[in-house]
Amino acid sequence: MKVGILGGGQLGRMLLQAATNYDVTTYVMENDPNCPAAHLCHHFTLGNITDFDAVYQFGKNLDAITIEIEAVNVAALAQLEKEGVKVYPTPAAIKTIKNKILQKQFYVDNEIPTAAFHITTSSAALLNYIDFLPAVHKLGEGGYDGKGVQVMNNQMELELGFNAPAVLEKKINIGKEISLIIAMDAMGNTIIFPPAEMIFDPVYNLLDYQISPAKIEDTQLWKAEAIARKVANGLNSPGLFAIELFIDNKGEIWVNETAPRVHNSGHHTIEANYCSQYDMLWRILLQYPLGNPAPIEPSAMVNIIGAEGCEGEVVYAGLKDVLQLDNVFVHIYGKKQTKPGRKMGHVTIMSNNYQALTQRASIIKNTLKAVC
Amino acid sequence: MKVGILGGGQLGRMLLQAATNYDVTTYVMENDPNCPAAHLCHHFTLGNITDFDAVYQFGKNLDAITIEIEAVNVAALAQLEKEGVKVYPTPAAIKTIKNKILQKQFYVDNEIPTAAFHITTSSAALLNYIDFLPAVHKLGEGGYDGKGVQVMNNQMELELGFNAPAVLEKKINIGKEISLIIAMDAMGNTIIFPPAEMIFDPVYNLLDYQISPAKIEDTQLWKAEAIARKVANGLNSPGLFAIELFIDNKGEIWVNETAPRVHNSGHHTIEANYCSQYDMLWRILLQYPLGNPAPIEPSAMVNIIGAEGCEGEVVYAGLKDVLQLDNVFVHIYGKKQTKPGRKMGHVTIMSNNYQALTQRASIIKNTLKAVC
Repeated sequence: MKVGILGGGQLGRMLLQAATNYDVTTYVMENDPNCPAAHLCHHFTLGNITDFDAVYQFGKNLDAITIEIEAVNVAALAQLEKEGVKVYPTPAAIKTIKNKILQKQFYVDNEIPTAAFHITTSSAALLNYIDFLPAVHKLGEGGYDGKGVQVMNNQMELELGFNAPAVLEKKINIGKEISLIIAMDAMGNTIIFPPAEMIFDPVYNLLDYQISPAKIEDTQLWKAEAIARKVANGLNSPGLFAIELFIDNKGEIWVNETAPRVHNSGHHTIEANYCSQYDMLWRILLQYPLGNPAPIEPSAMVNIIGAEGCEGEVVYAGLKDVLQLDNVFVHIYGKKQTKPGRKMGHVTIMSNNYQALTQRASIIKNTLKAVC
Repeated sequence: MKVGILGGGQLGRMLLQAATNYDVTTYVMENDPNCPAAHLCHHFTLGNITDFDAVYQFGKNLDAITIEIEAVNVAALAQLEKEGVKVYPTPAAIKTIKNKILQKQFYVDNEIPTAAFHITTSSAALLNYIDFLPAVHKLGEGGYDGKGVQVMNNQMELELGFNAPAVLEKKINIGKEISLIIAMDAMGNTIIFPPAEMIFDPVYNLLDYQISPAKIEDTQLWKAEAIARKVANGLNSPGLFAIELFIDNKGEIWVNETAPRVHNSGHHTIEANYCSQYDMLWRILLQYPLGNPAPIEPSAMVNIIGAEGCEGEVVYAGLKDVLQLDNVFVHIYGKKQTKPGRKMGHVTIMSNNYQALTQRASIIKNTLKAVC
């Protein structure tokens, strides 16, 4: 089978790493010939994944196509789907999710709990909502990796709002943040990975990692899984869907947002689960049975983020010290240049002891730095 | 770092899969542009790995170079080593191992237990050893994957012996066959993977798989590990060494042979051990600390071998049935053509229950076929 991936970042890289286990011919399109995934596919195409012609030409001779980022040309994917290419996730699902306004409306239409919101079309319109604060303002299109999101607590922040179609979402008093990945195959079978829990301490902000399975109540797990099923059934699309959820300080669960693809919160599944999120997506693309998402051991995952104040050729300080630790799996994405906040790699830790996970995550956070 | 691999078969493919975790620029040389590893490296060179000039030109601008097969041009590697390229394993170690006569002499020189043997230079010379039978006749150079080996039980078989320098080795009454991988880094630190045990039933010959860790006595494990250390110290070379051992029917341990590279008997370490054999070799090549070879769970491994009577474009019959099994990891090597006996892939099974491993290995052996 010939399968294409739109986007050549770290998610594409890890998808291709997983593809090595199967008899599949791989194609990648990205506008950077040195992107993390470029050298790991059979056929690399230099091109703009938001351009209709580029995507259409790339996809028209493929058996199946998937994405590693939502910012793709959906019209071209819809045309390819019409011509018989398997597009997983479907163009309709991508279209719903990539626009935050449509995504919020989808949750409402499907009775999926999500924070109250208003749709704002301009910064002027935004000024009507002073009584709605505190809130989060999210650009309808174009936001990614924390960009396109504004937290608004007061009039002054409200006045600096995006002057573009956006969602103004009531701020939830977050108790926990969890993420849950659901897989749906072409027959509509679904399977859910155990949730991951984001650990974040605003004071000691080096303590920023995730653990999986999340330490949540059984009833919260059941609710989270029910929500995931509603999302997958509502989108009604083969593929992988990562659903970020808030558990508020009363224990209620709310969808924050969904990504229709492999996701940062599923990196740990490479080593820590019997079937990884990457393997799972290949099984869907290649029409194989879904795999077993059960954990082998609990795990923690730490992102390696480009250090503040560094922009230039990357050096991984502390890498040898981290590789000295037992049961630690380092993934460097092969990006040549670092800049503040850029995702440069991640480290997964496996242990049956949650305290050991936390301790080791903290050591790694304080040891391994992407600097220049 | 720029690292080259001589050979582009499945071992190279899995090495490159593991390299995806690190910031390394990879180079492969092989004489087949469609070999399993060709599309997974940064730079592929079409060339003959047994040719001095080809190997020298390939290696001269690299930081380090390794092999995935012994049949390489050792003189070129020696020249590269002299010019400062890190060649792991060393050319001297490859030279000793790739010639079975030198390899046997190495065991004798280092007081490593190995079956009694005579060196034979021609088929005429062989006829003197009728009283030495039963024995195994192994070509000095050029044998690989079962080729170049003759079992000799009688005068008639003796008369059909290789007419070339070879080793005539006393046949051992094999109780068990185990394999053990030892890693040595550039500082001389060593670490040993738990042994794998080959399960073979000459009657039900579909029952042919391996389990790891091997079920052997503690004293046998200690002896096997002591032998592995003697081999690694004797070769005195950074790299990975797979040591195939016989345990005879009295419980004594004998070296069968050594491979100076990642090995078929270490495939299971990809999923079943904290550090895989492939990751371990990268750690050595990249001057990182050695990893933890401990098993996460016990495992079985089944090779997918080209079926008898099939030569042509491969089809994997039963693949979906096998992918339906829990905790089973399929690796297809991406070879387009199958032929009888060709290694087309492997499947690893993980379970804490040895009976479940055996049962599932048997199911896989009987289900998954590389046919045409």
